[in-house]
Amino acid sequence: MSSTFGRFFRVTTFGESHGGGLGAVVDGCPPRLALDPAEIQAALDRRRPGQSDLATPRQEADRVEVLSGVQDGVTLGTPIGLVIRNQDQRPGDYREMAGTPRPSHADYTYQVKYGVRATSGGGRASARETAVRVAAGAIAEQLLRERWGASIIAWVDQVGDAGPAAVDTLTVTRQAVDRMPVRCPDPEAADRFTAAITAARDDHDSVGGVVACAVHGLPAGLGEPVFDKAEALLAHAMMSLPATKGFEIGSGFAGARQRGSQHNDAFVGRDDGTLGTATNRSGGVQGGITNGESVVFRVAFKPPATIGKEQATVDFDGAPVTLAARGRHDPCVVPRAVPIVEAMAALVFADLALAQAGR
Amino acid sequence: MSSTFGRFFRVTTFGESHGGGLGAVVDGCPPRLALDPAEIQAALDRRRPGQSDLATPRQEADRVEVLSGVQDGVTLGTPIGLVIRNQDQRPGDYREMAGTPRPSHADYTYQVKYGVRATSGGGRASARETAVRVAAGAIAEQLLRERWGASIIAWVDQVGDAGPAAVDTLTVTRQAVDRMPVRCPDPEAADRFTAAITAARDDHDSVGGVVACAVHGLPAGLGEPVFDKAEALLAHAMMSLPATKGFEIGSGFAGARQRGSQHNDAFVGRDDGTLGTATNRSGGVQGGITNGESVVFRVAFKPPATIGKEQATVDFDGAPVTLAARGRHDPCVVPRAVPIVEAMAALVFADLALAQAGR
Amino acid sequence: MSSTFGRFFRVTTFGESHGGGLGAVVDGCPPRLALDPAEIQAALDRRRPGQSDLATPRQEADRVEVLSGVQDGVTLGTPIGLVIRNQDQRPGDYREMAGTPRPSHADYTYQVKYGVRATSGGGRASARETAVRVAAGAIAEQLLRERWGASIIAWVDQVGDAGPAAVDTLTVTRQAVDRMPVRCPDPEAADRFTAAITAARDDHDSVGGVVACAVHGLPAGLGEPVFDKAEALLAHAMMSLPATKGFEIGSGFAGARQRGSQHNDAFVGRDDGTLGTATNRSGGVQGGITNGESVVFRVAFKPPATIGKEQATVDFDGAPVTLAARGRHDPCVVPRAVPIVEAMAALVFADLALAQAGR
Amino acid sequence: MSSTFGRFFRVTTFGESHGGGLGAVVDGCPPRLALDPAEIQAALDRRRPGQSDLATPRQEADRVEVLSGVQDGVTLGTPIGLVIRNQDQRPGDYREMAGTPRPSHADYTYQVKYGVRATSGGGRASARETAVRVAAGAIAEQLLRERWGASIIAWVDQVGDAGPAAVDTLTVTRQAVDRMPVRCPDPEAADRFTAAITAARDDHDSVGGVVACAVHGLPAGLGEPVFDKAEALLAHAMMSLPATKGFEIGSGFAGARQRGSQHNDAFVGRDDGTLGTATNRSGGVQGGITNGESVVFRVAFKPPATIGKEQATVDFDGAPVTLAARGRHDPCVVPRAVPIVEAMAALVFADLALAQAGR
Repeated sequence: MSSTFGRFFRVTTFGESHGGGLGAVVDGCPPRLALDPAEIQAALDRRRPGQSDLATPRQEADRVEVLSGVQDGVTLGTPIGLVIRNQDQRPGDYREMAGTPRPSHADYTYQVKYGVRATSGGGRASARETAVRVAAGAIAEQLLRERWGASIIAWVDQVGDAGPAAVDTLTVTRQAVDRMPVRCPDPEAADRFTAAITAARDDHDSVGGVVACAVHGLPAGLGEPVFDKAEALLAHAMMSLPATKGFEIGSGFAGARQRGSQHNDAFVGRDDGTLGTATNRSGGVQGGITNGESVVFRVAFKPPATIGKEQATVDFDGAPVTLAARGRHDPCVVPRAVPIVEAMAALVFADLALAQAGR
Repeated sequence: MSSTFGRFFRVTTFGESHGGGLGAVVDGCPPRLALDPAEIQAALDRRRPGQSDLATPRQEADRVEVLSGVQDGVTLGTPIGLVIRNQDQRPGDYREMAGTPRPSHADYTYQVKYGVRATSGGGRASARETAVRVAAGAIAEQLLRERWGASIIAWVDQVGDAGPAAVDTLTVTRQAVDRMPVRCPDPEAADRFTAAITAARDDHDSVGGVVACAVHGLPAGLGEPVFDKAEALLAHAMMSLPATKGFEIGSGFAGARQRGSQHNDAFVGRDDGTLGTATNRSGGVQGGITNGESVVFRVAFKPPATIGKEQATVDFDGAPVTLAARGRHDPCVVPRAVPIVEAMAALVFADLALAQAGR
Repeated sequence: MSSTFGRFFRVTTFGESHGGGLGAVVDGCPPRLALDPAEIQAALDRRRPGQSDLATPRQEADRVEVLSGVQDGVTLGTPIGLVIRNQDQRPGDYREMAGTPRPSHADYTYQVKYGVRATSGGGRASARETAVRVAAGAIAEQLLRERWGASIIAWVDQVGDAGPAAVDTLTVTRQAVDRMPVRCPDPEAADRFTAAITAARDDHDSVGGVVACAVHGLPAGLGEPVFDKAEALLAHAMMSLPATKGFEIGSGFAGARQRGSQHNDAFVGRDDGTLGTATNRSGGVQGGITNGESVVFRVAFKPPATIGKEQATVDFDGAPVTLAARGRHDPCVVPRAVPIVEAMAALVFADLALAQAGR
Repeated sequence: MSSTFGRFFRVTTFGESHGGGLGAVVDGCPPRLALDPAEIQAALDRRRPGQSDLATPRQEADRVEVLSGVQDGVTLGTPIGLVIRNQDQRPGDYREMAGTPRPSHADYTYQVKYGVRATSGGGRASARETAVRVAAGAIAEQLLRERWGASIIAWVDQVGDAGPAAVDTLTVTRQAVDRMPVRCPDPEAADRFTAAITAARDDHDSVGGVVACAVHGLPAGLGEPVFDKAEALLAHAMMSLPATKGFEIGSGFAGARQRGSQHNDAFVGRDDGTLGTATNRSGGVQGGITNGESVVFRVAFKPPATIGKEQATVDFDGAPVTLAARGRHDPCVVPRAVPIVEAMAALVFADLALAQAGR
């Protein structure tokens, strides 16, 4: 178990999908930061299930409580304790599956690793675990915005075969993203994405997708080579999210097809005396360090493993069984993954910004 | 600067492309491991430049010296100190570029981050830094093989537009990979890859590519959720390598196009009473934990930034200049990246195997 | 802020003396450990104020809630979230002191370090912070007992000038310690300690003391040289407690007066084929590693800084003021420090035992 | 094995008393620091054996080589690699003791812990390991002096029963300390200390002692509660040194005898508008954070375990043997421990200063 992320802005989380609740400790947040608890709650509300008929109808209030580290709306520099109580548990939904590891789920690997396993829900492997990441990320985001003027925005870039969306990474707003339940600011793509998710749901199936994210306004100089390069920490953060299968920054896998003369980002002088780049195939990072351009990356999510369709598999003893999920589940995770990707990006850059601040 | 990787099997590195030398400290390697220094050297020799006319003709002897932690061919459990001396330095190759940050290189970001910068070569951002990763990785690989019977094999899967190679991930051998200088075991693909690199070189240009890697024989149960999932550490490790732009595991970005009913890996009973999966879209990892199947992943490398072709850019003061590299450089990094990817994979799984061993 | 202790058995804490509450996350506790929440509560009850007239009459219920990581009385291997709500707050007790840093308290240093400070109580510097250390330590203690058969026992060895107590470190029991409110198992010394504390209290003053601790049954081999030697981690742990001024192990400062021929612990053969030592001036640790003998150490606590007696000092602006505490406070911390010292010792050895288990 | 110390200014060491050599990697040293390699060497020369007839006549050149991280006398912000070659090895001195664990040495515990052990010398447990700590500490000291104007000075305060020395902690200089081979600036005490060491040596015995240390000029605000308080890290650092048995700060164990009204340090206004304290029983630290006064602490060292006198003990098989060391050894470690204590103090405060700088 490794439940801590970050070296300077450190987040430690706990909590299963079922049990008393989840929580996070944010350690290292600088003192004297104006912190708005409502903004933390607003971030959680964006992640919450039950927001549209594209997502699981499971209702989770997800009220976050700030237990420490903040007084009169200002951080004290001491650890910030966050707790979210669990509610709306229906362990019965999972009971019949106790003897059978769900295909492409974590049931089997948790059982092998720990020799014991939460008997209901996904336990620690549940996507519910990400709720406190979002809460902690909302604090990181306020820090980045107030101290460095940075902003983060993610959107759904692909669902199944549909995509990518046509989005101007430099001007897209969170309002534009949230306008559509599918969280894609390109209306035409949003329609296709919505149709793909609806079709999967109607087939008792699920579908994968891709979330894109841009981070604007970061100062140049963030990233700690050689092992904690900015893209290495971003990749770590994103690949620690449930259901992720791929990460790419800037040109990504497409960049591997190019030649250097096509791919190199020529420098240009900026009015403020710094240098910028004419293009941004680097994705805002060179040599593992931000160069002042927007950081742009994409994260691939597989289709959710829990599907209503019947699956032929075997139980823990190797005996053939047919499995069909009864529980409430998301046919596609990417719309709800948008605020989670943003939160993890905020955690990465809050950490790197503090690392650099000490220099 | 973050020069340490791993929590249980920890590697700390130092060294610039120019200066006295490079080194690594491997801390946490278990005692009583038979360790063959010749195997460390052999790994280094695979990474070394000048092995074929596909790579830079720069000659680096890269002799590794083991200063501590090993006696009579057996590890003592104490830190293993490794040093590689620098040789064959031609700082003059770089002198004329001192006032101009090379496009898509780390010159600009290092200058902004540190306010000072090695005046020759790529300094700490040079690919030369990876030499000691390979040396440390060779130790990790011996540990994984002797204690857990695991093996690691990487190959070039794509160069520019050519690829992917047709490779049976379960049976491919390192001998087959090394047979071709381009390090692709598919002869037909190898020819196309060689042609692509040769064409780029003849154009004074460079070209990107993809390295694929399979890790066989790992026990189920490796990975430390929620933040240090196996794929998260792998992504971190790979994206900390110079020139990487993307990482994917199992189905990767292609998996985002699929439906759950296509993507899920049904379980099957194995003769030894454990479970396996009929397919391996998960890439050997479920819920962030190895499931006993082979771990399979791919890493995208951009085309090298240093090219002989003229580039229009600006100097540190913003004045337009035309740049054309004179130094010796690789037209494509992926053939030499093969042992580096293997080394980083070895470091990740040695770390995770020791984390699990304590449980 | 550094709110995490341990590498393998990691505890992260949060919480101020005033605010919503305190908590801890215990990460790395092995799975399948029978864990009794009542034992955690019992440990907390021993630390609680208001147990006798030797301590502050402040009442704190200190009910611990286990939010995650445990199911059906067994650990899951996932992080264990613990929360204790704050109660019985009387911020008015502190209001008049807001403009004056209390001598030998943390008011001044917190203000300088963070530029902001909890306006009531000691904030994060309050001894109340140790409550969750005790809760986490109770989990570590159960782990050490169940897996390795180890036991930990601390007692008051000195109060002011009185002491040391006559205690057989090998046979003393926790029951014998708790029999006296002053937590000294030597009845004659207990009387003198009680008199010293009572006299200090009656003088509106406070008094210092020493806690001794023995850890029995630890396997040989615990300790991670060169920086995380067992005594180094113990010293770190103890000196991180409020009001501690000194730490010594085995012969300690007295050992510095001796010659090697007096001090060396000769080896003797044991019936089980292992070696023991005829004496234990080493305090159970040699070369930073446990040798199988009992680990014995002592911790010096200064007199509490909060006293009713008038003190001449200056306010934050440097203007002379006379200060006399009104709040409820302990005239001597050592009786209540006993379970806290035990808890920190448990955290240290749980961490080291897991470090060694992976080897 | 834990061979890394510090979080922000991180030192990782390797090397045995015998073998190719020792080394350290200093990671996190800020860029643009003027670094004088001669000063590193000078620090090593102070630690070197063979400086007087009070110490072992063993000759070790201890030439440090800086392999990376520095160019033109200025740090680059990249890791600084340091290597010291081993010389003057006489493994024969130890051969006859291979089958018998030396009393109060690390032979037995290393054998139990690792199941293997360096066959000559003390291996990693040798005091020789501290050479690279001194080299790394010299870098930290330069950083503290240049950036924060801090200075560190240690001296021998006690040898055997003789002491403490009469030393004005605020005005004592390193020159005054080094004037006497025994490294005590109080001439009268120095004579008694010298006599005590000579007597022990003549008796083929050894003797313990105490080193005191003062750190001046540190800014207020250093220390990372609750676990990484300044005194906790200092204690950790000092108790990680070979042969240490105790640590105390400020009033230390004597403070435990006092009452609060005696012990409290009243605040006084300073001309620069900050507050100071009229006395310094706190030892420069309150609530785990420096308060701007000098940090003063003491470290107890046991008598060296290696003595020429015959000792009755048992071999690894439990059979009685009589042991008498032949090798060259120190009759007392404290004179040579002075620069080592200073080095560890420098590492602690460089780390804490960088931690606070990021805030």
